[in-house]
Amino acid sequence: MGILVVGSVAFDSVETPFGKVEKVLGGSATYFSTSASFFTDVSLVAVVGDDFPREHTEFLMSRNIDLRGLSRNRGETFSWTGRYGYDLNDAQTLETRLNVFETFKPSIPPEYEEAEYLFLANIDPDLQMEVLRQVKKPRIIASDTMNFWISSKNEALQKVIGMVDILIINDAEARQLSHEPNLVKSARTILSLGVKTLIIKRGEYGVLMFTDSTIFAAPAYPLEKVFDPTGAGDTFAGGFMGYLANTGNLSESGIRQAIVFGSVMASFTVEDFSLERLKTLTYPEIEDRYRSFKSMTHFEGLPGED
Amino acid sequence: MGILVVGSVAFDSVETPFGKVEKVLGGSATYFSTSASFFTDVSLVAVVGDDFPREHTEFLMSRNIDLRGLSRNRGETFSWTGRYGYDLNDAQTLETRLNVFETFKPSIPPEYEEAEYLFLANIDPDLQMEVLRQVKKPRIIASDTMNFWISSKNEALQKVIGMVDILIINDAEARQLSHEPNLVKSARTILSLGVKTLIIKRGEYGVLMFTDSTIFAAPAYPLEKVFDPTGAGDTFAGGFMGYLANTGNLSESGIRQAIVFGSVMASFTVEDFSLERLKTLTYPEIEDRYRSFKSMTHFEGLPGED
Repeated sequence: MGILVVGSVAFDSVETPFGKVEKVLGGSATYFSTSASFFTDVSLVAVVGDDFPREHTEFLMSRNIDLRGLSRNRGETFSWTGRYGYDLNDAQTLETRLNVFETFKPSIPPEYEEAEYLFLANIDPDLQMEVLRQVKKPRIIASDTMNFWISSKNEALQKVIGMVDILIINDAEARQLSHEPNLVKSARTILSLGVKTLIIKRGEYGVLMFTDSTIFAAPAYPLEKVFDPTGAGDTFAGGFMGYLANTGNLSESGIRQAIVFGSVMASFTVEDFSLERLKTLTYPEIEDRYRSFKSMTHFEGLPGED
Repeated sequence: MGILVVGSVAFDSVETPFGKVEKVLGGSATYFSTSASFFTDVSLVAVVGDDFPREHTEFLMSRNIDLRGLSRNRGETFSWTGRYGYDLNDAQTLETRLNVFETFKPSIPPEYEEAEYLFLANIDPDLQMEVLRQVKKPRIIASDTMNFWISSKNEALQKVIGMVDILIINDAEARQLSHEPNLVKSARTILSLGVKTLIIKRGEYGVLMFTDSTIFAAPAYPLEKVFDPTGAGDTFAGGFMGYLANTGNLSESGIRQAIVFGSVMASFTVEDFSLERLKTLTYPEIEDRYRSFKSMTHFEGLPGED
């Protein structure tokens, strides 16, 4: 059991209309693994520089995340600087410094090779493929990607997509990947690449899930306090995969519950900068919000049919 | 029983990435009443010019809509010309000709004064107030408005809002009306104006409903074929009010079902230009889509709590 995630651990500098932080803990694998750690065991593969402070690794260890796959290389940690306006759906990247990430070659520790759940966070599709070569047969492989790889490494990306079970991307990425503005048609095109389940994240508008025969639509939890959407998508993926790995229930019904758990986790992350909200989060709070989510979306069927 | 709607009957000329139509049947009261007519009796108050063709009135009569309140004045019918890009959420208005609407003074026929359900479509708030003066005490009053009135007749509009039970507006209008970008806070501000139920339409992203103590979130039905979003909001309101008037069930649960019926009706309207799709629509199709809507949004509660 347990999840293996390969992605980035980073320093983020973020400005939103509600505040500003410099060089705080960020990165796709960080958000993913912290979120998943509320549900199951997580092993992380990533790289940091020798400037990465002990408090961050201590935090990740306090969440019981296995860091044997976290390399510490000479140089500076990957860093991202971005800004959001009032439309918190769109991040504007001001600067990306790959630093030690530039030469990152994921190497999966032997103890990790038996992971049953694998998440390939948004990294170069060539590296994602490299990871796929190193792991045994996981029960579920999910992956993310981004506009940059869709345009610059399309062929490699399509190969990866053909090998994963679940693709988790946002609506703009789905449209770009499929060359199709309509999301339903876009989903059909992407499913034809070989992926079984496509999850399209729509920020504050929630999530759509597509399979060959079903669609599931979940709104996002309406929040009064949205400070910083950074990491929301990876937190979603972490809660989603975490719940799947916890229950082992890969039925449509289990996947739908996992999507709601993912949405719940993302709704907490955006309430504060960096991983601050996840640091104080408790499992009863997660369950409470799941219940609100359920009552917030419930409606009766047709008379006599509920 | 039955609904009274006061609004516009118009000629629309619309261009979308999928086609173009000229001078077709449109208008808020037209979409609203046609949609509501699938659920209940509707009486319409509006004005057209002497250029309004018989085929359109015959269509409305075929839907059993009471047209005794439809004045035919000398001059041309109100007309709207607009265009949509691939982002079908945003209409670009190219031309609005008020024509006979410019001197429109709604006069409620005595037979209509007892209407139990009243919908004030998007017209000048002074005219909406004029209607409120003429009707007896309806069981439910709902209204719509738009950015133009929020900025140009804010005071009159706020008075109207204080007198209605249900306000149905889109997200940009909610933000403008409340001077608040966050929708949850925005909703709270608008509810404090005296309205009991606020429904915020978010186009392809669905609907949020707010009351003092509850939130309901419904996604929009994901469609493969969206031809023309014109009239979607009024069609939503028509299905919503129509179902409420049909059942008389004004509980939270009844209102949630009505929201889904409204969303179902809107999902049909956008499948073709003008009211073309509603012309061939049947009630079993509405029920079928309601059922898909239900299964598309369903997920289980926490283990042991469903």
